[in-house]
Amino acid sequence: MALFELTLAEAADAVAQGELSPVELTGSVLERLDAVEERLGAYVAVASEAARESAALAEREIAAGRYRGPLHGIPFGLKDLIDVAGLPTTASSRVRAGHVAQADSAVARRLFDAGAVLLGKTHTHEFAYGLTTPQTRNAWDQGRIAGGSSGGSAVAVAAGAATFALGTDTGGSIRVPAALNGVVGLKPTYDLLSRHGVTSLSWSLDHVGPLTRTVRDAALVLSALTGHGSKDPVGPGAARPGCPPPEEGNLTGLRIGVPVNYYFDRVSPAVETAVRGALAQMADLGAELVEVEIPLARYVQATQWGLMVPEATAYHERALRSVPELYAPDVRVLLEAGELLSAGDYLRAQRARTLMRQAWGRVLEQVDVIAAPTVPMTAAEVGQDTVEWPDGTRESVSDAYVRLSAPANITGIPALTLPVGRDHAGLPIGMQLMGPPMGEALVLRAGQAYEAVQEGHGGPAPVAA
Amino acid sequence: MALFELTLAEAADAVAQGELSPVELTGSVLERLDAVEERLGAYVAVASEAARESAALAEREIAAGRYRGPLHGIPFGLKDLIDVAGLPTTASSRVRAGHVAQADSAVARRLFDAGAVLLGKTHTHEFAYGLTTPQTRNAWDQGRIAGGSSGGSAVAVAAGAATFALGTDTGGSIRVPAALNGVVGLKPTYDLLSRHGVTSLSWSLDHVGPLTRTVRDAALVLSALTGHGSKDPVGPGAARPGCPPPEEGNLTGLRIGVPVNYYFDRVSPAVETAVRGALAQMADLGAELVEVEIPLARYVQATQWGLMVPEATAYHERALRSVPELYAPDVRVLLEAGELLSAGDYLRAQRARTLMRQAWGRVLEQVDVIAAPTVPMTAAEVGQDTVEWPDGTRESVSDAYVRLSAPANITGIPALTLPVGRDHAGLPIGMQLMGPPMGEALVLRAGQAYEAVQEGHGGPAPVAA
Repeated sequence: MALFELTLAEAADAVAQGELSPVELTGSVLERLDAVEERLGAYVAVASEAARESAALAEREIAAGRYRGPLHGIPFGLKDLIDVAGLPTTASSRVRAGHVAQADSAVARRLFDAGAVLLGKTHTHEFAYGLTTPQTRNAWDQGRIAGGSSGGSAVAVAAGAATFALGTDTGGSIRVPAALNGVVGLKPTYDLLSRHGVTSLSWSLDHVGPLTRTVRDAALVLSALTGHGSKDPVGPGAARPGCPPPEEGNLTGLRIGVPVNYYFDRVSPAVETAVRGALAQMADLGAELVEVEIPLARYVQATQWGLMVPEATAYHERALRSVPELYAPDVRVLLEAGELLSAGDYLRAQRARTLMRQAWGRVLEQVDVIAAPTVPMTAAEVGQDTVEWPDGTRESVSDAYVRLSAPANITGIPALTLPVGRDHAGLPIGMQLMGPPMGEALVLRAGQAYEAVQEGHGGPAPVAA
Repeated sequence: MALFELTLAEAADAVAQGELSPVELTGSVLERLDAVEERLGAYVAVASEAARESAALAEREIAAGRYRGPLHGIPFGLKDLIDVAGLPTTASSRVRAGHVAQADSAVARRLFDAGAVLLGKTHTHEFAYGLTTPQTRNAWDQGRIAGGSSGGSAVAVAAGAATFALGTDTGGSIRVPAALNGVVGLKPTYDLLSRHGVTSLSWSLDHVGPLTRTVRDAALVLSALTGHGSKDPVGPGAARPGCPPPEEGNLTGLRIGVPVNYYFDRVSPAVETAVRGALAQMADLGAELVEVEIPLARYVQATQWGLMVPEATAYHERALRSVPELYAPDVRVLLEAGELLSAGDYLRAQRARTLMRQAWGRVLEQVDVIAAPTVPMTAAEVGQDTVEWPDGTRESVSDAYVRLSAPANITGIPALTLPVGRDHAGLPIGMQLMGPPMGEALVLRAGQAYEAVQEGHGGPAPVAA
């Protein structure tokens, strides 16, 4: 087994025991990255030399007895919306040519303080405004899309070209590419992690979070991001206690809400079968499955777009006037459309959000977590624009991917996606677990209990080099 | 001295000592109300019988040893935007014909729990959307406007037709009529008092607060509204401790910021002289006067309107479509104008608010409170639409009245207005003291120290019956 195949938890244990050199681990991941990057296009920029130096520094610190914790010496990728002082934050856009970040984002600062080793910046759909990430290909089939907008982070982690990564999620942008590439992605509670130094798409919906190959690894990254180890101010998250490591293998007493509407509508048979199979396994572990009705479901799409579109346009106001030609056509159309929305439309969406938050809160008093497909279908083919469902409706691929993710953005509740199987073409399928606000420990515990009884989880995708 | 002339504190002390009967106090205030109401038009509806019954109940409770505190048995008026179960909430509008509130608002509930005696509902500018309150006349000169939108509450208190009252303040609607009628008005920190059951004008700018004849009285009402006495949920305010009574007569160590820009621009000489005279008195009491620069002042008007107009229109959306003819023309024009604002305009205003909050926060690190005129001129004549300033600019009366009040609405900081003199025509002049968020105790203490050294404060206006 090559070192790049290690999960974060495995690598961290070995580093802590003195059995694994951060330099060798980073070297292995960089080699893997070199081998697969041309096929995958996960990275905007790779900083090999700086990574090797950081790994060497970590190794010296650990040897000197200054071990900082599980992320010390572990190589990671950062979605290129997230500032690192001295590096460009390209947002995968020509608009950002010549940009260099002046300071670290709060989350990058936390990871550096934890001793993690930055490999490079990963591709995003331009300014996070899309579900494809066109520069990047799916880790399991390069004829398929990576998903987005954190496509580079998901593919890098899936392929073993990073041991973990950070992404951002405004309407599913961590969870969609995580699901499509068979990795784990966590969108935490709104405002748990600081967005300081992270390029905004839609500030009331934006979240930062980890992508990893296991649920256990996601808990480790979240713990570092929320912990008290750093002296830097990182916003509201700083005041909150770190997330405890979840327990394994037993779900006795956990009430899992299974939606009777919305989440299994217009979902491919393979996805439904895999998710229901995972739920049956969780019931075997002691969980109680409880049918729940998803409230206000028909307002999800209008609310998501009513909030996101004007906020995104407001952020891009100046560049849209001065250099509109530098945006990709799909993103430019969305940004320009945002200028046509009325204040009343936006306020209606805000009010719908308030009602949805309250209604979801009532559902989450009846159950501990809600389980559902992350996305209604596996990875689309590159160039595929629409999907046709058995009920005769046709939907854009983007609308399909955002449909089941958006409620957790609108309501701000934590949502974890984890792999629960593959379709007939071998493409990964994701299930999401959503919990109450600040209920990260609960969804991670549930996910880890499921994960613990799967065979061979946590390994990278077998990308042909 | 007639009982209606007593301040709340004087009446409360006498009631507590068993020297004053709530029934007699309420009777005196109702007589005064009857005598002046035809000239003033402060009340939408007066509930004399219910008030006498409540006063009698209070008297029996107190006699039985169940004294509830300073508001027990004290008669008050409630702006007719504030729900009381079983009574109409007319918002002084024909749109509300036939409306009856199903439940008490949180603030009314608090006052009832404190044993206060409701006299009736007071006039507002229609739906609080104006600075005049056309049904009501100024307590000091019935050829002058009451100011608004809490005009009925201010005039009732000023005239002795209520011992205290509640109003609401979205751009100055407590402080403007308080200043124009020579009474005290407090707009507390945003969200300190629940808006539950209070008709919204613009939810991100709306505040509920007391109108009284002294600063000490305002502190007593605020204490009842924020205290822990009630078992009812009243929103975030419930969790906060009651405001302690302010100390008197000594301001040693208090740093009072005196604006070098904005707040003394386009202000009548009489207002400027009175406010600067009050500041000199506060310096004599030990306060340190510190010049401060008001940040982002030129964005105040656009920010206030950019937030208020679309939020108000959103609230009235349905009625505006179904019964537009029932609104007064001035209010209908404003509501219809709100439909033309873009989401971008609203978001620009939201972002300007964020910047203003931060910038004001920095100023309020340098000083404890900021003192300024409440309004730039005394009460306008009924029918007067505009005012011309010595610099040749012309301004609508409404714009003039909202100009100096709006910053505290945008930033959410507490702002207290108190009388500091009269102009040559005998019309009252108000000064406002603004403090940091949750700094109510500070502004009340400062105001009370000033008040304690004035002669003859706290008495009602000499309205000819």
